[in-house]
Amino acid sequence: MMKIKGIITLVLRIIALAAAVVATIVMGTAHDSASVMSFKFEAKFTNSPSFKYFVVVYAIASCYSFVVLVLPFKNLLWRLILILDTVMTLLLTSALSAALAIAYVGKKGNSHAGWLPICGQVPKFCDQTTGALVVGFIAAIIYLLLLLYSLHTAISPLFVTT
Amino acid sequence: MMKIKGIITLVLRIIALAAAVVATIVMGTAHDSASVMSFKFEAKFTNSPSFKYFVVVYAIASCYSFVVLVLPFKNLLWRLILILDTVMTLLLTSALSAALAIAYVGKKGNSHAGWLPICGQVPKFCDQTTGALVVGFIAAIIYLLLLLYSLHTAISPLFVTT
Repeated sequence: MMKIKGIITLVLRIIALAAAVVATIVMGTAHDSASVMSFKFEAKFTNSPSFKYFVVVYAIASCYSFVVLVLPFKNLLWRLILILDTVMTLLLTSALSAALAIAYVGKKGNSHAGWLPICGQVPKFCDQTTGALVVGFIAAIIYLLLLLYSLHTAISPLFVTT
Repeated sequence: MMKIKGIITLVLRIIALAAAVVATIVMGTAHDSASVMSFKFEAKFTNSPSFKYFVVVYAIASCYSFVVLVLPFKNLLWRLILILDTVMTLLLTSALSAALAIAYVGKKGNSHAGWLPICGQVPKFCDQTTGALVVGFIAAIIYLLLLLYSLHTAISPLFVTT
């Protein structure tokens, strides 16, 4: 039983690593340019603080996911991993939400504020950003699952003893 | 010792409740209007999906914080509270990040995308939104502290037994 749970956790961590790496690369390399009325418009992730935050957080998550995978499993270590998993899930949620909020304005605009959508001008950038957000969402969901599983492991001994 | 910890948790939960309620009301009532070149511009939280999300999540957090305060403390219940605290912290982080991303564009604009800042036109709305975000940040930080404390409580018996 413990072995099956260990394998499931391992598989989830590998998928989370892959998703975080893909999200970082896809968002980091998203690029497109357009000319609107002699106004040269270049779209890349560094144009928006939210997208920069997304790339930084997902790069950190990639490194962390890799380190956790290669580290030898120890009894004391999983308590630290529980705390780190919590922090990582919060960071991923935060970065994803901020990037999603900006991407939504980029796609739909905001007529009240007079912000026009930009996806018509730079469709390649928009598609790649959307892809990064979808993969990033998968990474965040897997981290949430890992966290809930770790929480369950942490509190389940108490279900028996109390 | 347990009594002091209980009092600290209680105080933190009361502050979290107050902060969540204030953030909801301040964001929900933020309102200003301006006329720019015969273009009537009205700013309120319903203009942005991110601000709507903020108000909904902080209203839920207010209700949850109140329910947790008035519920009688039971041995089995704190495990459910640990899970709910985790979900609530994630929701608050998500809502705060999304609203912060939009508020940043509202304040600074984004020259690359051609989105102009709106705070010059509707300063009252901007000030109130900033206030809501600051108080919302306090609520999120307190929930993070409560979560870390709950995690510590959950895993500390294992420190003794293993």
